[in-house]
Amino acid sequence: MASKAGLTATTIHVIPATNLAPVPTPGTEDYLKLAHTDHMLVAKWSAQNGWDTPHIKPYGELGILPTSSCLHYATECFEGLKAYRGEDGKLRLFRPDQKGERLEMSAKRASLPTVQPDQLKHLIEKLLELKAPSQMVAQDLPSPVPVYPTDHCGNRKPMSFGTPQEALLFIVAAPYPDISKTIKARGQSSGLKLLVSPPGSARSWPGGVGYAKVGANYGPSLEAHNAAKAIGFDQVLWVFGDDQSVTEAGASNFFIIWKNKQTQELELVTPTLNNHLILGGITRKSVLELAKPRLSTSVGDLAPLKVSEVDFSMNDIEEASDEGRIVECFVSGTAYFITPVSLIKTASANIEIPVPENDQSYAATIKAWLESITYGLESHEWSYLVPG
Amino acid sequence: MASKAGLTATTIHVIPATNLAPVPTPGTEDYLKLAHTDHMLVAKWSAQNGWDTPHIKPYGELGILPTSSCLHYATECFEGLKAYRGEDGKLRLFRPDQKGERLEMSAKRASLPTVQPDQLKHLIEKLLELKAPSQMVAQDLPSPVPVYPTDHCGNRKPMSFGTPQEALLFIVAAPYPDISKTIKARGQSSGLKLLVSPPGSARSWPGGVGYAKVGANYGPSLEAHNAAKAIGFDQVLWVFGDDQSVTEAGASNFFIIWKNKQTQELELVTPTLNNHLILGGITRKSVLELAKPRLSTSVGDLAPLKVSEVDFSMNDIEEASDEGRIVECFVSGTAYFITPVSLIKTASANIEIPVPENDQSYAATIKAWLESITYGLESHEWSYLVPG
Repeated sequence: MASKAGLTATTIHVIPATNLAPVPTPGTEDYLKLAHTDHMLVAKWSAQNGWDTPHIKPYGELGILPTSSCLHYATECFEGLKAYRGEDGKLRLFRPDQKGERLEMSAKRASLPTVQPDQLKHLIEKLLELKAPSQMVAQDLPSPVPVYPTDHCGNRKPMSFGTPQEALLFIVAAPYPDISKTIKARGQSSGLKLLVSPPGSARSWPGGVGYAKVGANYGPSLEAHNAAKAIGFDQVLWVFGDDQSVTEAGASNFFIIWKNKQTQELELVTPTLNNHLILGGITRKSVLELAKPRLSTSVGDLAPLKVSEVDFSMNDIEEASDEGRIVECFVSGTAYFITPVSLIKTASANIEIPVPENDQSYAATIKAWLESITYGLESHEWSYLVPG
Repeated sequence: MASKAGLTATTIHVIPATNLAPVPTPGTEDYLKLAHTDHMLVAKWSAQNGWDTPHIKPYGELGILPTSSCLHYATECFEGLKAYRGEDGKLRLFRPDQKGERLEMSAKRASLPTVQPDQLKHLIEKLLELKAPSQMVAQDLPSPVPVYPTDHCGNRKPMSFGTPQEALLFIVAAPYPDISKTIKARGQSSGLKLLVSPPGSARSWPGGVGYAKVGANYGPSLEAHNAAKAIGFDQVLWVFGDDQSVTEAGASNFFIIWKNKQTQELELVTPTLNNHLILGGITRKSVLELAKPRLSTSVGDLAPLKVSEVDFSMNDIEEASDEGRIVECFVSGTAYFITPVSLIKTASANIEIPVPENDQSYAATIKAWLESITYGLESHEWSYLVPG
């Protein structure tokens, strides 16, 4: 009988897959042909018994009934994190405890059962230890990076609106392209093109769930995302309120490097998390934590700068552009990693953003620092070595 | 090969269930022991081929993969409608075309494929014709009412954030208790108790999706709903903005009958749909459409009243209560039908609302009018007779 105390990764039932997908050829992009690895991890929860023993089994259907609340009421949340294979052939997770803490927060917000971050980390590592690594072959750096979404969803008994009495936690591993590479390969405009969200459209609001990684933040923003894609933009830059306060770029956080209007001081700025509109990205947090000490003095040709979490508006960006004060913009996130922005389009203006082509840009420097950690070139507490 | 033109109900593959649940005994509440009827209807859609031939098959798992976008990104919407069995033994649907139109609107908003309202109605009727009716036994009026949620959900290929390339439409039939009866059976406080949403908490927002029946409106509001339930309330009365503008009661629309402060005229009022915060309920619409002509003159002991869609605030309600101008409050919806409200609690006040015990209240009169239509006692274009 399962304990109601919580989910533990100490005992896992393993049902090995027999129909194995071919291992991609090292040095090629064959891995992108895989939709997922051979196995998935699934753990069931019920209000009556708590968490059941987790299972690792062949990738396949989850057994979700049509009356499941996750299909009607979006009682769901998730996380995505990447496993990086270093030159030593070993896999590393980037700040899995931070991801686990955020999943805990999101699950509470979605009225779903929680899993301790430490246990979640061990579940991920058990899945990776089994079969997945053989399909995540060593590549030249930067190597392909699989994503590990982790979903909760309320299951069954949904006919009345209430807390799910059953839930599933599941973890799958899938190959993921390096989006920053894809953007770079486009050539001339080697930065993201962002379209400012249309007036009268809001991704999130005070008192809502913009700060949690719940499904409800994504489906409703697809309409604006698709409209932006259809006219050649990569992402929507979501602004909020009458003053068009900058929030986030949908699947990523937004950073700008400019000369401060008042002080003329060089400044790396990202919006605050104050009013709960923005998902507090782990990559965002890492950028801030690295940039604060390391960019307080000059780095190569890069002048030192101040790092600030401050709210600003589209007006501030336009003004800075008109006055030639913008140095760089970039987005951060697990999917986009660190990718420069080359254009921001508002209803009335095309704001061109400089994208330095050499590796001496701030974005490229921060990206290199992060890669050094994620791939284990630099020993760092943020990088968790997967045993085996 | 399926046509990309749309979904048609003309050809349906039927796989009959062999393991049939017992038919409930007429005149009892045995039907509530059923979680669902023996069959469900499922239709698959893909961007490549459009809608596939719909299947009616034994109720069971939907074959959803862990990488399905409906589990991560809440690419989902739904409808619920009731089938009423009249004294003639026949089943009727209430305004299925209106529900179909709303599902079309919600599906568009959720970036999902649409189904023509007329085809949806025929799909529902095919499911009912088959086996479901034998489990929906004739009862004394008001009879048990099954619910027919209809879900779309983006399926598979979700690893990048984008429009679902596959989707499912599914229809299940399940027994549903008469909530207004349950509330009445509680005795003394034979009305709903509503808790005003906590400050800094918002169900919806201008530019959001509060007006569409998408999953994203529900999961995030569960937290406040549970907190209200835990202290003995039935539902949250969601208010918006600094002036606490009244919106809706979560799963239902809100109506108040009061003497107008300025004119002292008797008035039936519900908030407008102007800023897209509120789901435009079909029952809400029907109440307005019935009340306007029928309550323009006195009905029995009930004085005539004016029917208005007007925005008002919690302050207006408190003031009306203090001045003894409130006559009745009720909510409307498919789940709650027409149910009186007896208490509204704000952070600082308990507003007691009169609940007339006799059948001569406005709420009871409107409810009786609607029941007369839903059960086919009155021939009306809103009631759709299921053939067979």
